[in-house]
Amino acid sequence: MSLADRPAPGCACGIDVHAHVIPHDLPRHLGNAVPAGWPSMAPAHACHRHVMISGKVYRTVSERAWSPSRRVEDMENMDLAVQAISPMPELLSYWMAPHAAAQLLRYMNEQIAEMAALSGGRLVGMGAVPLQDLGLALAELDYLADKLGFRAIEIGSNINGKPPGAPEFDEFFAACAEKGVSVFVHALKPAGVERLVGPDKLLPALAYPTDVGLAAASVLTSNLIGRHPALKMAFSHGGGTLASLLPRLEQARKVFPALLDAMPASPSEQARRLYYDTLVFDPFALQHLLERFGPDQLMIGTDYPFAFHDARPVASIAAAVADPDIRERLVSRNAARFLGIAVRAPASNP
Amino acid sequence: MSLADRPAPGCACGIDVHAHVIPHDLPRHLGNAVPAGWPSMAPAHACHRHVMISGKVYRTVSERAWSPSRRVEDMENMDLAVQAISPMPELLSYWMAPHAAAQLLRYMNEQIAEMAALSGGRLVGMGAVPLQDLGLALAELDYLADKLGFRAIEIGSNINGKPPGAPEFDEFFAACAEKGVSVFVHALKPAGVERLVGPDKLLPALAYPTDVGLAAASVLTSNLIGRHPALKMAFSHGGGTLASLLPRLEQARKVFPALLDAMPASPSEQARRLYYDTLVFDPFALQHLLERFGPDQLMIGTDYPFAFHDARPVASIAAAVADPDIRERLVSRNAARFLGIAVRAPASNP
Repeated sequence: MSLADRPAPGCACGIDVHAHVIPHDLPRHLGNAVPAGWPSMAPAHACHRHVMISGKVYRTVSERAWSPSRRVEDMENMDLAVQAISPMPELLSYWMAPHAAAQLLRYMNEQIAEMAALSGGRLVGMGAVPLQDLGLALAELDYLADKLGFRAIEIGSNINGKPPGAPEFDEFFAACAEKGVSVFVHALKPAGVERLVGPDKLLPALAYPTDVGLAAASVLTSNLIGRHPALKMAFSHGGGTLASLLPRLEQARKVFPALLDAMPASPSEQARRLYYDTLVFDPFALQHLLERFGPDQLMIGTDYPFAFHDARPVASIAAAVADPDIRERLVSRNAARFLGIAVRAPASNP
Repeated sequence: MSLADRPAPGCACGIDVHAHVIPHDLPRHLGNAVPAGWPSMAPAHACHRHVMISGKVYRTVSERAWSPSRRVEDMENMDLAVQAISPMPELLSYWMAPHAAAQLLRYMNEQIAEMAALSGGRLVGMGAVPLQDLGLALAELDYLADKLGFRAIEIGSNINGKPPGAPEFDEFFAACAEKGVSVFVHALKPAGVERLVGPDKLLPALAYPTDVGLAAASVLTSNLIGRHPALKMAFSHGGGTLASLLPRLEQARKVFPALLDAMPASPSEQARRLYYDTLVFDPFALQHLLERFGPDQLMIGTDYPFAFHDARPVASIAAAVADPDIRERLVSRNAARFLGIAVRAPASNP
């Protein structure tokens, strides 16, 4: 393999920051009344299970969702050396009573830690915290960082409607920055659903990137990274609509003094301090992100194991990026920095 | 002026499809109780007036909002030959009782027609209809097309929360297509406001392009243009977030059969049949739109006379587009086709 071809499809060198876990079983609720929306698993066809929420099948998933060995097998075909695994976002449970959510997320974090432990270093844990309660969220942050050794967490693009830039989360993100825990922001219960005309699947197709774009914008307009420069924060689905919102936000800051006060630094410049995954399904769109955000902020995101995922993430980057050094940053180096891990030597090299 | 420089700043050849009117006076409501939110005008400082809504100053505007001569004077400095003038979107009044809204919009349409008549062909009317009531909307469409000679109307990015692709507007758009009346979709009462963190001005900065993007997406997911191929429909603010939503929508259509059923044609291809203004304040963003939508769909939009407008629209295009033929399409030819008017010879030529 010549230097110019690296990293390229077949390298087995990619690091994926966006992949989800659903355990084979979910726990019974410990306590009196089972909270509304407490999820459970039910049998489905061979190697599959139903995620049940409020008595209905929320999604049917295969063993890929819980089996570390099956996942590592697929990672070979996806050219991935390492994958960060986080809960299916619907399990984040911000809408549940805080102690119930804390119970469920503790279970998820331990399941994720166990999968990582069984993977021979191929899977790393990305945990979750009950952000609807600052005290419980800080306690779980301590637990997953200090006891489980996680270096990253997943949060929703909004927490019961509040985006990450809202002031109530400031203290939590200060703690993440101090502990060196990176934050991956994933689409969840998005805004704008009332504007969709057509099948339900328009929700992940259109409303997810819309909500992620507004979430990322909230981090810029609240100057969150300016106030916590050590915080590493990433956004799913290429940051959603953020790249297209930036020029107008930049111009608005020049026109309206109130926006200049709110954003002491240029939002376009601040956006180049956030991280984004590459899950945009289009070489031209990826080039657009690279131009807007720079070569050090993009990292592979696949959304494995769901149907709407990128099965060839290294090829997707290779199709958009000619420069081998920049390619390598997108394929592995940026994610390694974000996740606080070493870049692996390509597994296919002797 | 050499051919390669045309059209360039100084040409006075641009056609602007996105500019607004507020009359010097608004009418008294004819009827019993004045509807909530019925707007009025009140004196302000020299050459300025307040738009009053529900007893508060909604916006303070200068004589540029109503004076044809003042506007034409500014158009010289903006390199504009022609400007289509439409109501300030807040006056569209979809939230008002239908007959009251019809009364207000009839007045607006006549004010706009009068401004156009006084302009020596430099201003063309873009009217409005009470889309909350199909019968009244069709009647006003007839009036403005047949009596006032308008070839375009402005509508909101949603009508009381429903985007233009919603089925209840289908019959109205069929009538527009049949009459050869083009439709300009402008941001209005946007979705996603609950995700903004910071000053009020984030609403036009971030929520406007978000709502326009979802409005344009609704037109694609409902196959509106596929069903009415003669309909010409344009979107403000460069189509908002649409360009960044398209690749994921395209991929979703490949993954989910329900989306393939809803969209018989590729949404990226259908998007190249819609029109968009150039109001993106950034050469790279404009190039991105040109790549996504093609050279025949972009037209000058300035948002004159409001503070957050593009005062040098021809220069903005010249900064992004090197090819003189494509430049000319964006500066005037596409808008002339959309508005059903002739391209003017550059006014600065003898």
